[in-house]
Amino acid sequence: MAQRVEIALEAAVARAEFGAAPPLLSAAVRHALFSGGARVRPQLALAIAGACGDDQPALADAAAAAIEMLHCASLAHDDLPCFDNAATRRGRPSVHALYGAPLAVLAGDALIVMAFEVLGRAGAAAPARLPPLLATVARGVGMPSGIVAGQAWESEPVAPVEAYHSAKTGALFVAATMSGAIAAGADPAPWRRLGEKLGSAYQVADDLADAVLTEADLGKPAGQDAALGRPSVVTELGLQGAYQRLKSLVGEAVDSIPACDGAQVLRDLVQLQATRLAPKSLTRSAA
Amino acid sequence: MAQRVEIALEAAVARAEFGAAPPLLSAAVRHALFSGGARVRPQLALAIAGACGDDQPALADAAAAAIEMLHCASLAHDDLPCFDNAATRRGRPSVHALYGAPLAVLAGDALIVMAFEVLGRAGAAAPARLPPLLATVARGVGMPSGIVAGQAWESEPVAPVEAYHSAKTGALFVAATMSGAIAAGADPAPWRRLGEKLGSAYQVADDLADAVLTEADLGKPAGQDAALGRPSVVTELGLQGAYQRLKSLVGEAVDSIPACDGAQVLRDLVQLQATRLAPKSLTRSAA
Repeated sequence: MAQRVEIALEAAVARAEFGAAPPLLSAAVRHALFSGGARVRPQLALAIAGACGDDQPALADAAAAAIEMLHCASLAHDDLPCFDNAATRRGRPSVHALYGAPLAVLAGDALIVMAFEVLGRAGAAAPARLPPLLATVARGVGMPSGIVAGQAWESEPVAPVEAYHSAKTGALFVAATMSGAIAAGADPAPWRRLGEKLGSAYQVADDLADAVLTEADLGKPAGQDAALGRPSVVTELGLQGAYQRLKSLVGEAVDSIPACDGAQVLRDLVQLQATRLAPKSLTRSAA
Repeated sequence: MAQRVEIALEAAVARAEFGAAPPLLSAAVRHALFSGGARVRPQLALAIAGACGDDQPALADAAAAAIEMLHCASLAHDDLPCFDNAATRRGRPSVHALYGAPLAVLAGDALIVMAFEVLGRAGAAAPARLPPLLATVARGVGMPSGIVAGQAWESEPVAPVEAYHSAKTGALFVAATMSGAIAAGADPAPWRRLGEKLGSAYQVADDLADAVLTEADLGKPAGQDAALGRPSVVTELGLQGAYQRLKSLVGEAVDSIPACDGAQVLRDLVQLQATRLAPKSLTRSAA
């Protein structure tokens, strides 16, 4: 599954470079997309397409690739000097640190466009699935409540915490689960809850990591939530409270998986991913 | 036709605001989209859909709206401090001047997503037209040779002038003409040349305006090409040479219009738009 994601991403970028792409733009796009991300969202999309029969694997690959491209685009933009001004990401220089802010903006833009281009190309084999797929992916990213809106809440004087977290993290997980189902011709509605719960779990895990880990462990600046005054589950519930919340969210995610041929495989996968979520210092002390 | 464009844009934004969009993001998106633009590209798309029969008017509206959203997104990003650092645009504050760089980045991102969302929604009535429509619009915007690539050439140590201009201006005109045809179920290939010629004409007109007009007439900082060392037809051919080039490009655009029911209406429209292109001081002295 991991290999399917990398192959789909590599094929899309190679195609976008065909002819005469500006070399630095191309390098910035590659740095944004191939920088050691865990590929959690696209693998989730593929796992759900698999659980639903995966009768159009190229369309599932496209959905997975599109979700990952949009995730990487948002990271490239979030790291910009005008937002988090983060010099590192996953232990490597951020896109703007390496290529400058202009190319970081443009690499993000190019990845957003590429995501929809990839969906359109794969959709030619099953055009009736394209409208719901485009709607689902766009809802995870744009206005009113996708990741762009989530980032925009940080520019508001007051942000509703629930809406902020759901847009900033949950929306793209929901897009991943639902688009995996749509790509396989299944009803996406029963898969929404899994995306919501996993999104919430990742948000809690992210808050925990930001509070507990050092920059070296984290691969990006630590302690940013406290430093930037961002809402955090750790501030709200304390370390152990946040860790308990994480465990119960993963349980709810597993329980939400609808009956289908691949349900057990999927339950195991979610549980496995979840054990990697919490910082090790916490799992040791609270196990 | 102008009204169809505004109605389609307003409907798309209103829908994207539904529920709980962050208010400042919504305001920044509206400022980027409704700031007195001439709507040249979307009207061109609708005119060509009309010339091709316009049997799916909602899809033509969506194509037109998508093209304009992508154009406005690129302006919001191009005006950012890390690019042109332009405080004004069309005689009004640029998006970042009014809302700050973070919301200008996010408003552009939201508009890119919204453009593809609008296409997907309208495409439900004619799904077979969606894959070519998505491909055509994405080609006008992304890598390797859309407007994002055009802007990225400015970050390269050496940029091929032809590829730079064609990506920066021509690509979206080509997307406008071809997507108008696709939305109406027609073969887009015969409409490529019209987009290319009009794109080149607009590029020359833009260079002329930048060289000749004052900031007050232009509604944005003047003399930027010379100040930023950007390639310009005026530098290359002089003012009168550039003006002659503009006239011949408009002639070639008119001549390129393929035989169809609406050909004469379209020829008149292109000619009419073209008379508005050149700065008045030049049309007086060179008429």
